Amino acid sequence: MIRRHRDLYEVEVLCAGNNADLLIQQALEFEPNAVAIANKNLYAKVQEALEHTDIKVFAGEESIADLMEMSSIDIVLAAIVGFAGLRSTMRAIENHKTIALANKETMVVAGSIVTEAAKRNQAPILPVDSEHSAIFQCLIGEQLGLSEKSIAPIDKILLTASGGPFRGRNREELSKVTLAQALKHPNWSMGRKVTIDSASLMNKGLEVIEAKWLFGVEADDIEVIVHPQSIVHSMVQYVDGSIKAQLGVPTMETPIQFAFSFPERIESHLPRLDFAKYPTLTFEKPDTETFRCLPLAYEAIHKGGNMPCIMNAANEVAVQKFIDGEIGFLEIADFVEQKMQTAPFIPTPTLEDLFETDKAVRGGCC
Amino acid sequence: MIRRHRDLYEVEVLCAGNNADLLIQQALEFEPNAVAIANKNLYAKVQEALEHTDIKVFAGEESIADLMEMSSIDIVLAAIVGFAGLRSTMRAIENHKTIALANKETMVVAGSIVTEAAKRNQAPILPVDSEHSAIFQCLIGEQLGLSEKSIAPIDKILLTASGGPFRGRNREELSKVTLAQALKHPNWSMGRKVTIDSASLMNKGLEVIEAKWLFGVEADDIEVIVHPQSIVHSMVQYVDGSIKAQLGVPTMETPIQFAFSFPERIESHLPRLDFAKYPTLTFEKPDTETFRCLPLAYEAIHKGGNMPCIMNAANEVAVQKFIDGEIGFLEIADFVEQKMQTAPFIPTPTLEDLFETDKAVRGGCC
Repeated sequence: MIRRHRDLYEVEVLCAGNNADLLIQQALEFEPNAVAIANKNLYAKVQEALEHTDIKVFAGEESIADLMEMSSIDIVLAAIVGFAGLRSTMRAIENHKTIALANKETMVVAGSIVTEAAKRNQAPILPVDSEHSAIFQCLIGEQLGLSEKSIAPIDKILLTASGGPFRGRNREELSKVTLAQALKHPNWSMGRKVTIDSASLMNKGLEVIEAKWLFGVEADDIEVIVHPQSIVHSMVQYVDGSIKAQLGVPTMETPIQFAFSFPERIESHLPRLDFAKYPTLTFEKPDTETFRCLPLAYEAIHKGGNMPCIMNAANEVAVQKFIDGEIGFLEIADFVEQKMQTAPFIPTPTLEDLFETDKAVRGGCC
Repeated sequence: MIRRHRDLYEVEVLCAGNNADLLIQQALEFEPNAVAIANKNLYAKVQEALEHTDIKVFAGEESIADLMEMSSIDIVLAAIVGFAGLRSTMRAIENHKTIALANKETMVVAGSIVTEAAKRNQAPILPVDSEHSAIFQCLIGEQLGLSEKSIAPIDKILLTASGGPFRGRNREELSKVTLAQALKHPNWSMGRKVTIDSASLMNKGLEVIEAKWLFGVEADDIEVIVHPQSIVHSMVQYVDGSIKAQLGVPTMETPIQFAFSFPERIESHLPRLDFAKYPTLTFEKPDTETFRCLPLAYEAIHKGGNMPCIMNAANEVAVQKFIDGEIGFLEIADFVEQKMQTAPFIPTPTLEDLFETDKAVRGGCC
């Protein structure tokens, strides 16, 4: 997105987890002030590659969070996957940065704390997840609740879901699916964690919780609707019965660009939706008997406290176990459910409580 | 709509063409200050029925226009069908009223003059046509061109069309269709003129011209897309490729209410869209070889001047001829095309020129 709009944006900091090669390549192209790589073992490699430049090189998760204090940063694209994104996002909020939020787990785990901090620090949180960007776009001009005082006159949010690669399958069929099958998402090209979450519908559960916090609505006013073509990215139904939807070809470039350009739109040559290629759009209810992660997410947000954090940590562990071939696909939900029953519940957790909860669940506490 | 929201709205004036019975019934229910009936022969009937009330009774088209000067009127629902609505709508604009515009012919015939007068008199024109209400709703908050200075960053407008009762038929089949068949609209319950215009796609042509003037876009940036379910009421594609759509069950109550409640939304128990009842939404290109009224409308707006007025008058005459059994369905387009070729063209007509053009075409000038 920035490559297409070099006149509008400058990259100040670039961060990566383990992909040193891409970090080096992007650093050489965009010449940021600084880069940071979370994996300290890769520091020497990055440092060496950028030695002949003015780019400062840092390593370790803490250095990523520390870089959020740079006054030259206006907007932070928070795109670290999973719970790991929470600390640096919070630091960016505390430093009054605008957050373009691609990391949904931050909101899932600590939605109450994060939104409260964002309000206190006047740090706008703009969604990058395509569904939440769609909802955000639909809410524009409708007495938007995001950063203004009044709440939009919302009846409910219709959060669309592709249904993933296993839509229509029953539990018996799902008991036999492989990792390779789970990684074949019909519409979106994403990382492994998100792709498997999409297959289990946990991704949609996380998005329900994210939407609750981003838009200040109750989870029961968020309805998941399966739309296999992924053209309608989500909808908002207003109190007068009118529905607004945002549509487009499935590309993450549009929501990323919108978070950056808001409140304006930038002319761009992103691919246009051609209805001749999508003559039929279909909608159906999700199969929550088969895909149990979705009702588990509603259960977690209803319980509140650290329960979404427990659920999220358990899911991250379970997905890794599935990737490693240790458990089957259906056991992801079983594992999550079991942890939700046994991990210690904290009704009003602090941020540190959440870090402890996450660590305990990952450590196999219970 | 007002019956459901008596606490919010008062009826100040009611007007009718010929339906004295309904006018009397509504007058007794809503107790307006005044009523007017266009057909002077019905004056005595209305007067007698309302004698025991304080309601003033007027008759004749001029009296309808005169009533627009009443200072107690805030908003005028301009819903007189056809060219006949132009004079009273203009008078309401000159008297700085907010116009809830259901009469599309006003914009078709005199879009340039009407929008200019609305701007000069600071009379907002809010669309009531469901498609234009949809576009209007999609444009909210997007640097709206309607009443603000800056123009929304529009790529194009996607104007949806049901396709009418004859969608998918070829010219040979259409040469034999009856009035009764033309009056069977699949989704909307409307008057005869609009229903036949829907069957011929002239209604969509009129709407393209209306949209051009309402939203300040070129006709070539308005694309008609056939959507037989009439759930998506229209869409706007922005310069970043993002599309916003407005959806709902096909009922005129929603757009009427929105024009009245704008910029707010009123909580209402209007029927909600249930995707279980509409699991499949389809989209296709219009068949402009068979339905020639649509390209004729594009031709008229490209020519400009009094050409849309010629087209509209010819169409009103042709539809009446079809209703009267004088011509076949396909001959509506033939008749319109012929008048567009022979009626005197005026490049920059005044309002009076347009009244003359209308009269001449109706009189069989050419």
